[in-house]
Amino acid sequence: MGRIEGAALSVRALTVLLPVLLVAGVVAVPPLRGDDAESAMPAPPPRGQICAPDRRVTLYAERVGDGVGYGLTSETARVPGPTLTMVEGQCLAVTLVNHTRRRVSIHTHGVGYTPRSDGTPLNKGCTAPGESRTYVFEAHKTSRRADGTVEPGSAGYWHYHDHCMGTDHGSRGIEAGLFGALIVRRKGDPLPDRPPFVVAMVNDTINLRYAPDTPVFRANEGERIEFVVIGHGELFHTFHLHGHRWADTRTGTLRRSDGNVAVVDNRTVGPADSFGFQVVAGEQVGPGAWMYHCHVQSHADAGMSGLLLVRTPDGRLTPSARDALDAWRRHGHRGHP
Amino acid sequence: MGRIEGAALSVRALTVLLPVLLVAGVVAVPPLRGDDAESAMPAPPPRGQICAPDRRVTLYAERVGDGVGYGLTSETARVPGPTLTMVEGQCLAVTLVNHTRRRVSIHTHGVGYTPRSDGTPLNKGCTAPGESRTYVFEAHKTSRRADGTVEPGSAGYWHYHDHCMGTDHGSRGIEAGLFGALIVRRKGDPLPDRPPFVVAMVNDTINLRYAPDTPVFRANEGERIEFVVIGHGELFHTFHLHGHRWADTRTGTLRRSDGNVAVVDNRTVGPADSFGFQVVAGEQVGPGAWMYHCHVQSHADAGMSGLLLVRTPDGRLTPSARDALDAWRRHGHRGHP
Amino acid sequence: MGRIEGAALSVRALTVLLPVLLVAGVVAVPPLRGDDAESAMPAPPPRGQICAPDRRVTLYAERVGDGVGYGLTSETARVPGPTLTMVEGQCLAVTLVNHTRRRVSIHTHGVGYTPRSDGTPLNKGCTAPGESRTYVFEAHKTSRRADGTVEPGSAGYWHYHDHCMGTDHGSRGIEAGLFGALIVRRKGDPLPDRPPFVVAMVNDTINLRYAPDTPVFRANEGERIEFVVIGHGELFHTFHLHGHRWADTRTGTLRRSDGNVAVVDNRTVGPADSFGFQVVAGEQVGPGAWMYHCHVQSHADAGMSGLLLVRTPDGRLTPSARDALDAWRRHGHRGHP
Repeated sequence: MGRIEGAALSVRALTVLLPVLLVAGVVAVPPLRGDDAESAMPAPPPRGQICAPDRRVTLYAERVGDGVGYGLTSETARVPGPTLTMVEGQCLAVTLVNHTRRRVSIHTHGVGYTPRSDGTPLNKGCTAPGESRTYVFEAHKTSRRADGTVEPGSAGYWHYHDHCMGTDHGSRGIEAGLFGALIVRRKGDPLPDRPPFVVAMVNDTINLRYAPDTPVFRANEGERIEFVVIGHGELFHTFHLHGHRWADTRTGTLRRSDGNVAVVDNRTVGPADSFGFQVVAGEQVGPGAWMYHCHVQSHADAGMSGLLLVRTPDGRLTPSARDALDAWRRHGHRGHP
Repeated sequence: MGRIEGAALSVRALTVLLPVLLVAGVVAVPPLRGDDAESAMPAPPPRGQICAPDRRVTLYAERVGDGVGYGLTSETARVPGPTLTMVEGQCLAVTLVNHTRRRVSIHTHGVGYTPRSDGTPLNKGCTAPGESRTYVFEAHKTSRRADGTVEPGSAGYWHYHDHCMGTDHGSRGIEAGLFGALIVRRKGDPLPDRPPFVVAMVNDTINLRYAPDTPVFRANEGERIEFVVIGHGELFHTFHLHGHRWADTRTGTLRRSDGNVAVVDNRTVGPADSFGFQVVAGEQVGPGAWMYHCHVQSHADAGMSGLLLVRTPDGRLTPSARDALDAWRRHGHRGHP
Repeated sequence: MGRIEGAALSVRALTVLLPVLLVAGVVAVPPLRGDDAESAMPAPPPRGQICAPDRRVTLYAERVGDGVGYGLTSETARVPGPTLTMVEGQCLAVTLVNHTRRRVSIHTHGVGYTPRSDGTPLNKGCTAPGESRTYVFEAHKTSRRADGTVEPGSAGYWHYHDHCMGTDHGSRGIEAGLFGALIVRRKGDPLPDRPPFVVAMVNDTINLRYAPDTPVFRANEGERIEFVVIGHGELFHTFHLHGHRWADTRTGTLRRSDGNVAVVDNRTVGPADSFGFQVVAGEQVGPGAWMYHCHVQSHADAGMSGLLLVRTPDGRLTPSARDALDAWRRHGHRGHP
């Protein structure tokens, strides 16, 4: 495990992580804008925006199969979109390039933005077909107000999505695939050894797919892995992971002082709810093929199910996991095979 | 921001708050029954009731349009009913006057009551048409039991509703409008600068209304505002507020020591679930028209949506907010306008 | 109230509790495997299992009426199955004897197990008709990892269920009755004075029953009682208890330092969600017939409702409670009687 102070990130983790991050299109965490950094004179925010960006990303809205997805390049658009990662204190500018034939936007949860970056028709925040537009988001630090109360920071497992396509709430964009995870970390938060595993429970699908075409997440026993679970669309779901459990906290991890906090392995996920957690792959239970699935029985039976494939510490599949993976790929997932 | 010790309530807040409270029919917080107050010999509770009332309120159940509502007077009944506010330690008597043609009651969440004030047919707690009946509720303080464990206090964002009309669970009364917010505060809790904003998510409506007839809540940038969100009826919803976020705690506010507590801006609300939170209007994000809505997409599209209109600190609308408000009032809210 | 250190369990509680436990088929908490106990050389775990069992239970899957249930003996199978209670640190072997005509299994939430005890078709964990099979579960203690982070312990209100009958997710087994509560306690947790009250909200039933055939839980005023609430099947519910409230924590109880934790009396329960809490029967509110029910109005009206019958401290029914109980047994629970 590493912490977000770069030095603590193990060499092993970096070696494993970096190539995967690049391939998976995850936006790496940039250096922290430290309190003690020399920051002579911060630029003023652009007109009507919340902060002066210290990071810039371009997202392309593109057709992907029958649907639409966001991508860091025009060629790599996918569903869900790339996971955006911020650290509290950062100011991120996202330029959205709309290659679809309908208006789209990016609306974020958890971070701060002015009406100009709200991403809604209400606030004239849509991007027209063929156009591009820049949205600016700030991840706030926890701070104490003048009256002594506390303003919560932005750290959390959030998401971003379209708010314009089809309806004023972007319902057609969301059901077509315009959503992705947004993680805001706090200084000191533990970092996973692999890119986050994103499970978007959208209508009766996972990431708009049915088993066995849902993600098979892979990790080696002992690695710290991270799930981000997002709801979207019309239905309510429960997310369940076999063989692992997590704390019902901001990070999904526990501190010694949290002894009265609930630990769960199943959680209700309504539309636009999101949460995340880190677990150690195979901790206490060993390598194997561990299902994750919606626990609404008809949803699970219809294919809202996927695999966490935990290999041995040196990266091999156990015979049992190999058998399970083969069975997984074969089975129909619509009732009893 | 004020605290519930009266002296700390700022003059500005009082000036703004009091007239609004009177118009809105919110029951003001009475002086605390302090531990050190001289309370010679408390009266014994009325027969079969939990405590001897130190406050009395009369609620009228009346026809309101096609539905039914509670009111502090016969003429001011509305949906939702008036927000009742208590402080831990208080004993409240509510006399219900039934001006409808069917049996009704008041059943509360969060506070204590004997079977006589349960408000259910089961416990013979209904008020017949044309009759009146007094229900007595106690807001308990947190206390330590003889065995060393802790009895939770009543502080929280609760609600009250009918439990008699149409069925033994008051289903016809609830769908007709017989519900309202009940806030129990703890000594030391922060107080909002304005009367609470109540969002009751009932079937596919907000407060039995569809946008654009749903509430437009108004505040000035920098004011401490308070939402109470209540579910009722048949459906599950998620409550989302744009541009603001809150902590998943009793008060929705955060203490420095709560660093591992989840901060959210979207939350599942099932029937009779309730929660509340305080935010500073426009904090970090500035004035504007900020939507709140159910994030079940078809619910939002059908009109489960409203506005938090944050004005400038001196109470003016920004041009952007004015445009948004105009757009809001025009649009149809049933699909793409 | 007792704590799980046996000495603190009051004689009164034991006298009341033990015969009930035996009749109800609850598995009593065995002596703690204390840190200081002499445990010369623990046996190695059986091949492919997580730990060497220090407790063994046999469960029988049997036809029960139109459905199927688990039982500690072949004759006592029921719905829900017997409540299994563990203490963190224990290793439990459950031998499942399948007396049904279809494959069944036991899949647990909250505790640790290897793929061999996952109870899924995926991991070849089903028990064939007429066969028996042993599943091994470990209740982990909270521990600190080498990197300084904390592994959450298994303490919680969990459940177990079939994962094989009818579909790969056991959907036919669950709807037929193959589920039960699993409680994992932490050293120092308070113990209830009576066996836990289990409320499984399955489709539109409680424990596959409709009122007035749902459980009437009985306790004397002042006794510490414990609810375990479990969701299963297709639908989402909200659990509400009249006259009592609990904290939204691991145990449902509160510590003095938990002042910012939400206290609730209504909570959303999705399929396979589970939670539990302890309250003192009739605390502050006295004896009476207190309803618990799903607060989805049509579910409540259809019969998802039951009673907590709180007697006087010496075990008598008040006249009001007797009247309510009579009314309860008579009423139809499908709309207004």
